[in-house]
Amino acid sequence: MTANPQASAIPPRAGGRHRVVIVGAGFGGLELVHRLRGVPVDITLIDRRNHHLFQPLLYQVATASLATSEIAWPIRFLLRGRPEVTTLLGTVTGIDSAARAVQLDDGSTLPYDTLVLATGARHAYFGHDEWEPFAPGLKTLEDATTVRRRILMAFERAERESDPARRAAHLTFVIVGAGPTGVELAGTIAELARVTMPPDFRNIDTRKTRVLLIEAGPRVLAGFPEDLSAYAQRSLESLGVEVVLGQPVSECSSEGVVYGGHKLAASTIIWAAGVRASPAAEWLGAPADRAGRLQVRPDLTVPDHPEIFAVGDTVTIDGPDDRPVPGIAPAAKQQGGHVARTIAARLRGDTTTTPFHYKHAGSLAQIGKSLAVIDFGRIKLRGAIAWWIWGLAHIYFLIGVRNRLAVAMNWLWIHTRDQRGARLITQGRDTTKPG
Amino acid sequence: MTANPQASAIPPRAGGRHRVVIVGAGFGGLELVHRLRGVPVDITLIDRRNHHLFQPLLYQVATASLATSEIAWPIRFLLRGRPEVTTLLGTVTGIDSAARAVQLDDGSTLPYDTLVLATGARHAYFGHDEWEPFAPGLKTLEDATTVRRRILMAFERAERESDPARRAAHLTFVIVGAGPTGVELAGTIAELARVTMPPDFRNIDTRKTRVLLIEAGPRVLAGFPEDLSAYAQRSLESLGVEVVLGQPVSECSSEGVVYGGHKLAASTIIWAAGVRASPAAEWLGAPADRAGRLQVRPDLTVPDHPEIFAVGDTVTIDGPDDRPVPGIAPAAKQQGGHVARTIAARLRGDTTTTPFHYKHAGSLAQIGKSLAVIDFGRIKLRGAIAWWIWGLAHIYFLIGVRNRLAVAMNWLWIHTRDQRGARLITQGRDTTKPG
Repeated sequence: MTANPQASAIPPRAGGRHRVVIVGAGFGGLELVHRLRGVPVDITLIDRRNHHLFQPLLYQVATASLATSEIAWPIRFLLRGRPEVTTLLGTVTGIDSAARAVQLDDGSTLPYDTLVLATGARHAYFGHDEWEPFAPGLKTLEDATTVRRRILMAFERAERESDPARRAAHLTFVIVGAGPTGVELAGTIAELARVTMPPDFRNIDTRKTRVLLIEAGPRVLAGFPEDLSAYAQRSLESLGVEVVLGQPVSECSSEGVVYGGHKLAASTIIWAAGVRASPAAEWLGAPADRAGRLQVRPDLTVPDHPEIFAVGDTVTIDGPDDRPVPGIAPAAKQQGGHVARTIAARLRGDTTTTPFHYKHAGSLAQIGKSLAVIDFGRIKLRGAIAWWIWGLAHIYFLIGVRNRLAVAMNWLWIHTRDQRGARLITQGRDTTKPG
Repeated sequence: MTANPQASAIPPRAGGRHRVVIVGAGFGGLELVHRLRGVPVDITLIDRRNHHLFQPLLYQVATASLATSEIAWPIRFLLRGRPEVTTLLGTVTGIDSAARAVQLDDGSTLPYDTLVLATGARHAYFGHDEWEPFAPGLKTLEDATTVRRRILMAFERAERESDPARRAAHLTFVIVGAGPTGVELAGTIAELARVTMPPDFRNIDTRKTRVLLIEAGPRVLAGFPEDLSAYAQRSLESLGVEVVLGQPVSECSSEGVVYGGHKLAASTIIWAAGVRASPAAEWLGAPADRAGRLQVRPDLTVPDHPEIFAVGDTVTIDGPDDRPVPGIAPAAKQQGGHVARTIAARLRGDTTTTPFHYKHAGSLAQIGKSLAVIDFGRIKLRGAIAWWIWGLAHIYFLIGVRNRLAVAMNWLWIHTRDQRGARLITQGRDTTKPG
């Protein structure tokens, strides 16, 4: 611990309590609010959405397994018992760090004593934003219902298509990027086509569906040990997924994808290949890495701004072994907790700065409906036992008894009856895809 | 029973079975398919949506009580065990009754031997279609999520609004039309504002919300006996709803409504005042009433077309006591059953035509979360006991164990904890409303 010359203990603001403004109600922002319970501060939590989203299960909404409301909660409802917390539905447009105020889309400003940026990330197309209409990513509930509509509409169009080539394109699904989300999407779509869908169609055999998982790197689940990557690949292939490695996608269009010189006709492309941080670094004019992530100090403050913290996917910071802290929920929550402790310490007059230490609990990924891989460091698990741990962990981390029951019930139906409860095509026709 | 000169027994088509094409997978169309089980026909069921919708609970999606997937089922999934049934996602653009073919939006045609129109109705604005952007109705899942977003966004805007007049407008909800849907919406929104919302907001007192139910006729629930109407009105008023009777709404705009010379500023208007049948009558050039409903013969065939039936909200036909058969689910299902029996009889060579006889089982309407009125004819029920019958009846008529459990679980949470599970603002900002 070193004394930070700038992080002096902040006395209560004249006429009121210390004001903490938090931008973003994801895992990091919400954990921070929870950990500030009892600390004498007034909190304003701003988010562009009215709901907190359990992103690790978003792919299950996209694949018709879960309903949107089962993995999302109104933010102000979660904080209704905290009178010192004000929830604001609004979009931040900039930060005036000299005046210590957040600028909002309606032209108003919100003053802060301490600011915490927990604004997350969007998917990134590596300089090819024009691919987005053809290859949606998966970060919001709207993303998930868009992907769900595309997947279900592809089967519907195939059922009505008489031209064999166009029918084959409708029955070809490309997932770009073989991280956990890509692996989970590919496995689930393959099962949807091979197990859930066949009895429902009359003109097509959905078991002939092609699901391709295309990865630029040398293996799937690059963040996992090599033996678990190999197991995941074998499991995906036995579900019918075609795994393509070492081939970056060089084009996405309404026709399909191009990779490694191949042109593949595909109606449905899903992007799971990369993320770009929110514009928090631009708001501050602060240093960032190539993905736009703020380069914070070891105590998670922004350089030259000890009163501004940043957590979660919007920052880059090294963890143990000098590897970057991964962009996963437990990391964001640990950072939120660290910031809460720092704020509480400062209010007590403690001017030492404590660097954030990340503890990696483990990495999990589901493969299809009943297999998973888990890397706990020393212990590695795979197969059905890993799936049970994966399932129980995810249900445990959901909020509220009702949602836990609802998700467990949906999984029970998927496992015992191969029925997926949310096969709804809503929001009208998608106009960016071929008819 | 009279012999219909046109309805001769239809022999099997040369080279194949008799082809029944059904347009619309609502209560009438789906019941028809179920009742045709075992009858030697090939069935094609066409719908613009991929899902069957349990419309009687749609207002509960609009008021954040239920999730979309809890009251909707993929049509082809419901019929997966019926190989003789082909489900088609498509839009009908016309009917060539001379050639006996249905025209689809992709330019293809679908030949039929027997055609059944079960295309339902949309809400109608009595010649003021320009009101629709300001006063959405409630017929589809998209309608329900639109209304839900408007209701929730109104509270959010009020929370951020400093001008008292604009804040009051955001906290004013107008429901036009006091039939069952209007009554159910008004009661639920009032409870949302008075019971569910207050602990969640910091700058507004949601208990000051005004909910107005405006009806052109002399009483609420005009289809019910007068004493139940009076009870429903008293119950609504005790929930805080302002019931305005005998006042037609003469204008809807982004500012609010005008009724009986009054101008009322309101951000949220919901239309529950009238329906207009689908264009089935226009497709056929057949006689229709002012609301566009086909005037069918007593056996539900279209005049001069014994091979074309129509059922449900798209037809008008008199029931017992010469009162028109109401546009409710049980009526549509009874009509679907009648058409199935007629088709089966004709295939057996039975040329007599049997008129449809409607049996009214009862009328039900919920008022708030724990009261209801039921009119079984001789027996009239109201209050909590009526609510239990209402609730059990609706759960019984849902499809599948999982959805029954999910809906029951949601109602349990609403009753015991005043929590509504689907308070999600999705699909981005609504651009037709003032910011």
